[in-house]
Amino acid sequence: MPTIRVDMFEGRTPEQKREFVKALTEATVKALGTSPEAVDVILTDIKKSDWATGGVLWSEQKK
Amino acid sequence: MPTIRVDMFEGRTPEQKREFVKALTEATVKALGTSPEAVDVILTDIKKSDWATGGVLWSEQKK
Amino acid sequence: MPTIRVDMFEGRTPEQKREFVKALTEATVKALGTSPEAVDVILTDIKKSDWATGGVLWSEQKK
Amino acid sequence: MPTIRVDMFEGRTPEQKREFVKALTEATVKALGTSPEAVDVILTDIKKSDWATGGVLWSEQKK
Amino acid sequence: MPTIRVDMFEGRTPEQKREFVKALTEATVKALGTSPEAVDVILTDIKKSDWATGGVLWSEQKK
Amino acid sequence: MPTIRVDMFEGRTPEQKREFVKALTEATVKALGTSPEAVDVILTDIKKSDWATGGVLWSEQKK
Repeated sequence: MPTIRVDMFEGRTPEQKREFVKALTEATVKALGTSPEAVDVILTDIKKSDWATGGVLWSEQKK
Repeated sequence: MPTIRVDMFEGRTPEQKREFVKALTEATVKALGTSPEAVDVILTDIKKSDWATGGVLWSEQKK
Repeated sequence: MPTIRVDMFEGRTPEQKREFVKALTEATVKALGTSPEAVDVILTDIKKSDWATGGVLWSEQKK
Repeated sequence: MPTIRVDMFEGRTPEQKREFVKALTEATVKALGTSPEAVDVILTDIKKSDWATGGVLWSEQKK
Repeated sequence: MPTIRVDMFEGRTPEQKREFVKALTEATVKALGTSPEAVDVILTDIKKSDWATGGVLWSEQKK
Repeated sequence: MPTIRVDMFEGRTPEQKREFVKALTEATVKALGTSPEAVDVILTDIKKSDWATGGVLWSEQKK
């Protein structure tokens, strides 16, 4: 029954997302002993202009 | 003061959303005894290519 | 497949929570046409000392 | 290590967002004594047609 | 920079949590090509009396 | 109408939380031009044994 939410920068390919949700689910099944069907994963794409670290948006970070 | 967040597949019509937030609010008022004005509902549309169950994105589920 | 999360003040009785999740689920089924089994509801109790409106924690609000 | 998430109506300018994340981070550093680099801020734009108060979407509120 | 949040039933052992966050992080690094240090995982324990599926709390599900 | 959620390590004093929510709200009012009453802040205490960076729980980080 775990529900996994991921906030990540936008720009991943469909193939990356496909592999990512599969890998997260497998990690969950292995570590927690749940059935795969009980695992939900929701991906949220965040723009670099909407995420800041250290008070500076990633769209404006120097490096 | 309840704040209700809903993650759901995209594609609902404006009319469905209108009815949905009204129904959720009425359910909250009735069950918890709060005033309607204290109830916030935030809807988030999730693409089927961003939600996985059982390790497979809904955009790729067989059924 | 909707997942509903509710942040609300702590202090509800088990009976209130039971009625609340039932009512939210029925509202969802009716408004969106999903099956009941596809609806998850997660309740989160928030202390009044952890929720502020207008810059003042509810544990310290005058009224 | 605080992670701050903000749900707000869409329509803020890039300049407003830049000032906002800076101000939130400074407030966090001052109040909690963390380093700026430890503060993450994620902004989420919500459409008025996806946020309801009192059972009515903000896209349809009278005022 | 991905931030991963997991809502799951309470009751996991410290060892399970240790393995779980490690496995989720490794899955993220492999699938997305990020550095491990950029991956945050936040676990939230949910009581069975606070999570409902099909309108029934898990503390009251028949099976 | 912004709603601000903060995930942070547990252990802040009531006084720190009081100052924190006040400062976040003032920052929001100043940057976005909203009224203070429209700003909600919800604080969530996270145990170091429930938050990992780099695949290691903070309860087990070397430094």
